Amino acid sequence: MKQLLYNANILTMNDNYDAYENGYLVIQDNVIQELGEGLPAGYHTYNEKYDCGQGILIPGMVNTHTHVGMIPFRSLADDVPNRLERFLFPLENRAMTADLAYASAKYAAAEMQLAGVTTCSDMYYFEDDIASAVKEMGSRAILAETIIKKSPDTTADYETLDYAEYFIQRWLEDDLITPGIAPHAPYTNSTESLQKAAAISHKYNVPIMMHVSEMEHEMVYYAEQYQMSPVAYLDSIGLLNNRFIAAHCIHLNSEDIQILKHNQVGVAHCIGANTKSAKGVAPVKELINQEVNVGLGTDGPSSGNTLDMFTQMRMVANFHKTYNRDRSAFAAQEIVGLATIGGARVLNMADEIGSLEVGKKADICLVETQSVNMFPVFDPYSALVYSANAGNVEAVWINGAQRVLQKQLAQHDLRTIRSDLDSSMSQFKVIVSEL
Amino acid sequence: MKQLLYNANILTMNDNYDAYENGYLVIQDNVIQELGEGLPAGYHTYNEKYDCGQGILIPGMVNTHTHVGMIPFRSLADDVPNRLERFLFPLENRAMTADLAYASAKYAAAEMQLAGVTTCSDMYYFEDDIASAVKEMGSRAILAETIIKKSPDTTADYETLDYAEYFIQRWLEDDLITPGIAPHAPYTNSTESLQKAAAISHKYNVPIMMHVSEMEHEMVYYAEQYQMSPVAYLDSIGLLNNRFIAAHCIHLNSEDIQILKHNQVGVAHCIGANTKSAKGVAPVKELINQEVNVGLGTDGPSSGNTLDMFTQMRMVANFHKTYNRDRSAFAAQEIVGLATIGGARVLNMADEIGSLEVGKKADICLVETQSVNMFPVFDPYSALVYSANAGNVEAVWINGAQRVLQKQLAQHDLRTIRSDLDSSMSQFKVIVSEL
Repeated sequence: MKQLLYNANILTMNDNYDAYENGYLVIQDNVIQELGEGLPAGYHTYNEKYDCGQGILIPGMVNTHTHVGMIPFRSLADDVPNRLERFLFPLENRAMTADLAYASAKYAAAEMQLAGVTTCSDMYYFEDDIASAVKEMGSRAILAETIIKKSPDTTADYETLDYAEYFIQRWLEDDLITPGIAPHAPYTNSTESLQKAAAISHKYNVPIMMHVSEMEHEMVYYAEQYQMSPVAYLDSIGLLNNRFIAAHCIHLNSEDIQILKHNQVGVAHCIGANTKSAKGVAPVKELINQEVNVGLGTDGPSSGNTLDMFTQMRMVANFHKTYNRDRSAFAAQEIVGLATIGGARVLNMADEIGSLEVGKKADICLVETQSVNMFPVFDPYSALVYSANAGNVEAVWINGAQRVLQKQLAQHDLRTIRSDLDSSMSQFKVIVSEL
Repeated sequence: MKQLLYNANILTMNDNYDAYENGYLVIQDNVIQELGEGLPAGYHTYNEKYDCGQGILIPGMVNTHTHVGMIPFRSLADDVPNRLERFLFPLENRAMTADLAYASAKYAAAEMQLAGVTTCSDMYYFEDDIASAVKEMGSRAILAETIIKKSPDTTADYETLDYAEYFIQRWLEDDLITPGIAPHAPYTNSTESLQKAAAISHKYNVPIMMHVSEMEHEMVYYAEQYQMSPVAYLDSIGLLNNRFIAAHCIHLNSEDIQILKHNQVGVAHCIGANTKSAKGVAPVKELINQEVNVGLGTDGPSSGNTLDMFTQMRMVANFHKTYNRDRSAFAAQEIVGLATIGGARVLNMADEIGSLEVGKKADICLVETQSVNMFPVFDPYSALVYSANAGNVEAVWINGAQRVLQKQLAQHDLRTIRSDLDSSMSQFKVIVSEL
């Protein structure tokens, strides 16, 4: 099938930042076939035409770190210091089920689509159920089963290693879902479980992702126990390589940055979650200066609350300009890059997604400029970073299929997805009331 | 006229933070007559009933610092270091007219209403035209003519002092518009013009507002010239009192904070604009600890870009938690307080607005919880600060009149307001293209 999108302010996010102020783009099946200024030859012959109404057309955004099973936790105990131990772990152990993870993942995929996020990288439990949900919704995703000693979806210690391998085998050939493996963090795993996870990642050539250098206690522990940083420790046990996605990386020294660079590790920068929890600001300028790939992540809905990249883009601008004492640092164009092609590079998917270029997958987001916050638009990158919010996303295509139309899910009913999630949460709510 | 709002999650923002999970509120003419849990006696006799659909009902938000004439500048030169000199001042001098200020103010009032902001405090030029625009839109506002040596709306040096007095006299008795006077900044005024402005504020008992301790060059100048801070300088020339609204206050020492406290000065904290421009983070925790009144401000659309308080609330949370290294600091409830009753206190309007209490003016904002980002709501304050955006504002009442209904202006057509502004911008755009 061939679709024509026209009358769009196209930001390709290719290496030259090519843009077409009154642009068109042709989708052939699931691939971008052609794009440019004006209209294509024979434009009247297209059956499927979409008038973009002079909105801003960008690559579908890439959320490099989230936990799609955690929608039930949103707005719970946001400002509580020890919430991980007091709320999150008990609720995961007592109330998280395959059904709830599935219902939450469907909701999260819907939320991301409605916000223009077409690809996410997830680590959670019950990933086989999550994969079914995300697949059903038609989103592109890396989904990685979490490796941790005790998990809600297995019984024996580190049994998630078996689950993970089974899960990877089942989804290895899927066109939208890339299975992976996700040791929760260095400090919640044994060296042995980390190395087993790495071996599975190597065996199937799939992504491996982990929370790295996020916690202060983590930094203290590795300094005291190993006289090194978590990054140096992971390197010393052979964990790091170009399949590795390191989330957070708040506390890095210059040696760590060299290690990440040398191993071609991608960094999922979660500025919103990191600063909301007062953990700190990752040295992103230094990472970029050293050509480490950096993308943006929302973290889970209990940490970052919303799964959209607009919030993250605005936070990146304000925090990194302020930390670098330079208003011209992290210009809007560069930040839109982090949310699109930068994220694609982190996930090793930049050959397929992250920019609007001929031959790439048709993952596309249209941001309207009719709403009151979107006028005037002297600079479309500025409008995206400093003015837009998730509610401005008008239309979304993933792998050539239209998933959002007029700000609504094109092929699903959000009310049903929400009421299904709400029903699955009954036991969860009971336990919340007991905590 | 009597209106009943019901089926609402009401956050009153009174001193006890009283809340009604399934609440109702009765508006009699322009005043809140009654509110509580459930439904009032004789509820079926009300002609005007509004089902809030379990949305979150809060006081209309208060934007304590903005420049409503500056919508035309939005998305222009956001990341340019010397933009004030290179873009803003030349454009104001060459392209700002009464018509453009009027059209922009209408648009800005519309934008704020659609975002749940019912009161703003503005400083700009052509304030008489701006007042007509804001009045026409039905917003509540303090509007203050800017005092500066050369202004776009007068010819002689400091002639805006005369304009300001004329403007104040014309609007002194208005029920929605409070006129004021606004020396641009200490460093853009002579001591004499500052004192004349203060005298006018005193004579008419109207607000005086100013950019204070915002710029690094300002701090250096007062240190070198007067061996004191701008705040100490303003105090030394008799400028500070409880009618004074100090915007920004980024660079304060502990003596400054005592001076502000002693003089009962209110602070308009513009976290989004301050950090986007890499100027720094005001010591808000210290101000609050010293019981200085603090409200939130968006700054103008060329600095803060959007005029909604959701963006500011989220920025306040993330920046101040991080700066205080404490995730429990600046809890969501307190931040909603800054955006409502805190702002009302800064503007000396807390007797009339800022909380939902019997006898206060009916300035009310309804935030819906049906959109994808607003589920679940374990804590409505958290949902407002960490999840909501301006697009979630469902309905707004100002002074008892419904101004927003189903996310649209109830009594105006946004498209007309926008096309009028666009038409007024033709000369502005020509000059932009020449810069």
